Amino acid sequence: MRTGVWLVGARGSVATTGIVGGLALRAGLTAPTGCVTELPDLRGPALPTFADLVFGGHDVATTPLTKRADALAAAGVLPGRLATALAADLTAVEDDLRPAPTGGSQADRAATITADLTAFRDRHQLDRVVVVNVSATEPAPSPHPGHADPDALRAALAGPDEVLPPSSLYAYAAVEAGCPYVDFTPSTGLRLPALAALAAQRGLPYAGHDGKTGETLVKSVLAPMFAMRHLAVRSWSGVNLLGGGDGATLAEPGANAAKVDSKQRVLGETLGYVPQGGTRIEYVEDLGDFKTAWDLITFAGFLGTGMRMEFTWHGCDSALAAPLVLDLARLTAAAHAAGRVGPLPELAFFFKDPIDAPTHSLSEQWQRLVDFTRDLHAGGAG
Amino acid sequence: MRTGVWLVGARGSVATTGIVGGLALRAGLTAPTGCVTELPDLRGPALPTFADLVFGGHDVATTPLTKRADALAAAGVLPGRLATALAADLTAVEDDLRPAPTGGSQADRAATITADLTAFRDRHQLDRVVVVNVSATEPAPSPHPGHADPDALRAALAGPDEVLPPSSLYAYAAVEAGCPYVDFTPSTGLRLPALAALAAQRGLPYAGHDGKTGETLVKSVLAPMFAMRHLAVRSWSGVNLLGGGDGATLAEPGANAAKVDSKQRVLGETLGYVPQGGTRIEYVEDLGDFKTAWDLITFAGFLGTGMRMEFTWHGCDSALAAPLVLDLARLTAAAHAAGRVGPLPELAFFFKDPIDAPTHSLSEQWQRLVDFTRDLHAGGAG
Amino acid sequence: MRTGVWLVGARGSVATTGIVGGLALRAGLTAPTGCVTELPDLRGPALPTFADLVFGGHDVATTPLTKRADALAAAGVLPGRLATALAADLTAVEDDLRPAPTGGSQADRAATITADLTAFRDRHQLDRVVVVNVSATEPAPSPHPGHADPDALRAALAGPDEVLPPSSLYAYAAVEAGCPYVDFTPSTGLRLPALAALAAQRGLPYAGHDGKTGETLVKSVLAPMFAMRHLAVRSWSGVNLLGGGDGATLAEPGANAAKVDSKQRVLGETLGYVPQGGTRIEYVEDLGDFKTAWDLITFAGFLGTGMRMEFTWHGCDSALAAPLVLDLARLTAAAHAAGRVGPLPELAFFFKDPIDAPTHSLSEQWQRLVDFTRDLHAGGAG
Amino acid sequence: MRTGVWLVGARGSVATTGIVGGLALRAGLTAPTGCVTELPDLRGPALPTFADLVFGGHDVATTPLTKRADALAAAGVLPGRLATALAADLTAVEDDLRPAPTGGSQADRAATITADLTAFRDRHQLDRVVVVNVSATEPAPSPHPGHADPDALRAALAGPDEVLPPSSLYAYAAVEAGCPYVDFTPSTGLRLPALAALAAQRGLPYAGHDGKTGETLVKSVLAPMFAMRHLAVRSWSGVNLLGGGDGATLAEPGANAAKVDSKQRVLGETLGYVPQGGTRIEYVEDLGDFKTAWDLITFAGFLGTGMRMEFTWHGCDSALAAPLVLDLARLTAAAHAAGRVGPLPELAFFFKDPIDAPTHSLSEQWQRLVDFTRDLHAGGAG
Repeated sequence: MRTGVWLVGARGSVATTGIVGGLALRAGLTAPTGCVTELPDLRGPALPTFADLVFGGHDVATTPLTKRADALAAAGVLPGRLATALAADLTAVEDDLRPAPTGGSQADRAATITADLTAFRDRHQLDRVVVVNVSATEPAPSPHPGHADPDALRAALAGPDEVLPPSSLYAYAAVEAGCPYVDFTPSTGLRLPALAALAAQRGLPYAGHDGKTGETLVKSVLAPMFAMRHLAVRSWSGVNLLGGGDGATLAEPGANAAKVDSKQRVLGETLGYVPQGGTRIEYVEDLGDFKTAWDLITFAGFLGTGMRMEFTWHGCDSALAAPLVLDLARLTAAAHAAGRVGPLPELAFFFKDPIDAPTHSLSEQWQRLVDFTRDLHAGGAG
Repeated sequence: MRTGVWLVGARGSVATTGIVGGLALRAGLTAPTGCVTELPDLRGPALPTFADLVFGGHDVATTPLTKRADALAAAGVLPGRLATALAADLTAVEDDLRPAPTGGSQADRAATITADLTAFRDRHQLDRVVVVNVSATEPAPSPHPGHADPDALRAALAGPDEVLPPSSLYAYAAVEAGCPYVDFTPSTGLRLPALAALAAQRGLPYAGHDGKTGETLVKSVLAPMFAMRHLAVRSWSGVNLLGGGDGATLAEPGANAAKVDSKQRVLGETLGYVPQGGTRIEYVEDLGDFKTAWDLITFAGFLGTGMRMEFTWHGCDSALAAPLVLDLARLTAAAHAAGRVGPLPELAFFFKDPIDAPTHSLSEQWQRLVDFTRDLHAGGAG
Repeated sequence: MRTGVWLVGARGSVATTGIVGGLALRAGLTAPTGCVTELPDLRGPALPTFADLVFGGHDVATTPLTKRADALAAAGVLPGRLATALAADLTAVEDDLRPAPTGGSQADRAATITADLTAFRDRHQLDRVVVVNVSATEPAPSPHPGHADPDALRAALAGPDEVLPPSSLYAYAAVEAGCPYVDFTPSTGLRLPALAALAAQRGLPYAGHDGKTGETLVKSVLAPMFAMRHLAVRSWSGVNLLGGGDGATLAEPGANAAKVDSKQRVLGETLGYVPQGGTRIEYVEDLGDFKTAWDLITFAGFLGTGMRMEFTWHGCDSALAAPLVLDLARLTAAAHAAGRVGPLPELAFFFKDPIDAPTHSLSEQWQRLVDFTRDLHAGGAG
Repeated sequence: MRTGVWLVGARGSVATTGIVGGLALRAGLTAPTGCVTELPDLRGPALPTFADLVFGGHDVATTPLTKRADALAAAGVLPGRLATALAADLTAVEDDLRPAPTGGSQADRAATITADLTAFRDRHQLDRVVVVNVSATEPAPSPHPGHADPDALRAALAGPDEVLPPSSLYAYAAVEAGCPYVDFTPSTGLRLPALAALAAQRGLPYAGHDGKTGETLVKSVLAPMFAMRHLAVRSWSGVNLLGGGDGATLAEPGANAAKVDSKQRVLGETLGYVPQGGTRIEYVEDLGDFKTAWDLITFAGFLGTGMRMEFTWHGCDSALAAPLVLDLARLTAAAHAAGRVGPLPELAFFFKDPIDAPTHSLSEQWQRLVDFTRDLHAGGAG
């Protein structure tokens, strides 16, 4: 089952780490640490193997992948020996990277993207291509009448307006090319009625939003712990210090708001009430590709006794996100092969803000994921 | 369903907090925060109500409960207004507290305990009495031939040897009185072949060991998180700083070893491998009834990238343990009423070192507990 | 040396704690923990004793001091037994509290304040009255021509403009009454050319700004440590979570900016460069009178090796500030008695943003304070 | 002023980092971050320059320095580019490394060491050689009559007993060769009456003990902060998690005790009382050359209000220690040149357990060091 993995933001840290890792796994140079689809409960015949994966993508940047890999190695994100050993493979992937189209109407740009996707699929004789958005977080878009249904959308795109934010333009183009779409960011992506309707028409599955890689991952197990113990969470306050390009982007008020929102939703929906406090994102260049999050939780126990918990998470976002990108590509490809159409709430395990998912409890999400893959491997889940 | 709750260590902090809380709930003076049996997923008709509970117990100490309650109020463990409002009820409970028997053979002492239990049940016309051990942690006992089977045990108890550690002597006496037994401590309790056989003969259920109230509770959700994400935990090191009587006892090497052991087991069994590092328990008098635990976890993600997490837990053990004691008494009483015999692995949710339980994942334990109570409420689980 | 301590914001948490503590020290009911003027290096005959202190003040609020003391006892800020034991003394202090004047021109209000101060001094036959501002932090005021010199100021005050922010109006009135002035907040206070000139004319000393009670105190010893070891601080990021009235006020953008500014100045001036990162203040009601600050410091050592330090400070601002208020009143009274005029940079030890002080290193500030008090006790420092 | 730096433990992490750093500074390849003798307050003509330093040493290990440097680069302790750029210089230093002598009487071994030192000094025409002990921490030695005076010592060394622990044997040999001696470890070194007398006879200065590089450094500024604010430290508990060879050694009970002792002394001597709690050292291999220390401090403020502070220090011991080794070599060489004899308490700034030093306050130690170097540069301090 030859599967294309088309990365929007293909020269970014997450994408580069994912490509290096995918190539390293194919070459047997590394263990699949961090890949949940390689856990005994999930792996099986329905998923494309790492050797089945072929990488391509769009990016506005033009830095060669080998150079990006070297920079990530210098920053401690991946081992220098892998960057060196895989230089030739990375150069081969370059042939499948395309510049992000600019100029013309949005309809023109979408047509270019669709053509790039179709050519990629044909060139490598792929069974399918999964498009994964790993580009920088966007601010929320302004409403537009074109968002309402496919016809309105097509008409609007041909005009001069910037109807869709970039994540949604890629989603539109992906759907037009018959490609399943995964949004690893909190951007809009496919979350517009026009696009959801189109994906349904084309018989395509999709998944998102916002990969759960750090503080929110921890929240998704700690919040259920407090709930299961009937402890009253009084306040939950956090700060996220980020370096790297992601940090600079997220420090922008618009993007910050989108991200912070999806972070706090986990608490309210898990606990059944919203505790005091909030989450802040701050840019600290010196942290580079690493992120430090600190959370303080105050809670009351029996007879109202006040207690507290703090945690510090010091993680490398790219190293946490990249294997999940591979997992999502494999799972979404398998869902497509099985005939699944529309949102995939069974993949909520991977996301801060999952589409249509009834729970934020990591372990319930896990159980649902296990059931889903078992069905896939048994030939079902369609 | 009038239910006795007989506390071994009835004047200790956990027991006193439990009694004050139970009386406050009966009087409608407090909310059931921290009582898991009051969560929507668990509550129902099979459980005795708080008004059904009658408290009694043994202790080596003689400090009046009202005095203990005042001391706990001064230490911030419970509100002073409850200690004041419930003074008369606490004095009434005094009548059902008995000194821990001393002197004579262990058979003599067991007979006294059994007689105390039987008299308590008769005096209050109780349907049953659940014995809960909340006394100080013991060192592991020396092996003795009397541990092997009921006959050997009875013969040995009549002799001059200290055959059983105190927790097991109380368990023996409880079984002889026809009372279900719960061990909230890491002590031996019912975990001897002779006692398990006796409980089976008498048709009694039992549960244990070692209430999961702080650092281990957190471990039981964080360790599955790392496992579900296929992250490799390299080291997990912790330190527990405890004040209060519990701290002084646990700083004793023997007790420390018992406690530390059950703390580390969670990791090995959840992760499938034992990471580097260990857990230390230290006594710091100034912390009083509160406990501060700090844990450092180092882990590797995709391509081996090193990351880390730290947490600090600052909890009041009595405020965390006391509502669980009430929960366990209610659940074990309901299991007994439903005809359950032998260990209750469905109560693993409550324990660091659960008897016969296949998992240390809190959410799996929770699911099992939900199923168990649903069956109880439906009239089953027997 | 009978000394009045006139508190602007006399019913606030800091003032109430200071009054309770001052009365408790006079009555021998508590030890002078937290009072630096009782350390062997500082104490001596030049300072008024605790028995010499007489309390009065202004406040916009009208809650009785006994009620405020009870509330602080309930919140864990001070022991309930002191609130009870000192109830009569607190009621006596009520007679010396005055409502903050409202209405009329600022000149009218200043005249009322001056009259209140003079009457207080006469009524109790005090040698002097030190006015200490412990009211809520203000936003920075708009510039006004009246700020330039005493004549312009007097003319402007008689008009309809709000020429001075409240802290400065109290400072003006204090100077007019011949009272030394201490600003424990980051507000403007005496920091206007017109007021400084007036204080000089009247021969009065003054001190400020912004009591150093938590995170900044720690910074003032850690930043010199990094500097003395020639370690390169790359980033220093902090978050302050505050409950209580202070938290709500400081969460206002204007006040927040004033406070954050004085917090970061310590780093730049101590290190000789400004590291990345900043400080945030957030309001978390549940923290009550306590404050939790978390700071992350990343730094480079020999050959550029990256390292990090984190700290969490969980302090009670009132319990930290109140004894310093007593210290400042005693020291400023002694400076006045010794004939000191103008700013007192020797009191930099107490402040985040000290007037005219050349260093933010706590130990250098300490040395200067020790020298200053030694001179005072020797009959000098004038 | 050509100065030899003879490292006992010359192939260890601290020594290798120090040699690489010294060579890099000589070659202008790095900045002197972490070298306190390069701060404006300390630098000056009395100190040998980095170009004046010549490295040699003893070690029981035989791994080439280039290999050690590569390993440290891989572990993130130093930049790989330095290991590469300095490979030839490191190989040149190899010629001045000698095996630690074994076999024969202790007198024989001391003679070998002395001969090695003398030959090194002659070969490089050095003005003097400073011997610095950076080898692994030893357990405390058993008392021996030979420790009492030089004559008893010489007689005992010729016999079959292991009279001196290794650190002291090197100190003895250094003194016999006319070399000043610095002990960067908590081992015995020169702290025996016989050795102190010998050093005095030979007119040699010496310094120690136990380089202050992490948790204790922080303690030496935080403890004075609490003292200067008259806050009552109730408990101070810490845990040190160490990887690397040092960790494994220090986890040995004997060495652990020596280290822990010198860590706690700082608190007692600074505060004037010993708070509750203690410090633990644990070995966690995964931490490699880094060390994580966590400390919890509970303290009382005004009216007894309880508060707390926590800190986590995540440092690279070699990167913190190595520049101090260069500093100590430079300062001790200058002291020797100035004719100083006996212990150098002015160097207390560098040590956890300084010889003859009256204070553990870092800033007081700093002031003393500044005065000392000013005198040296002015041609005094002799």
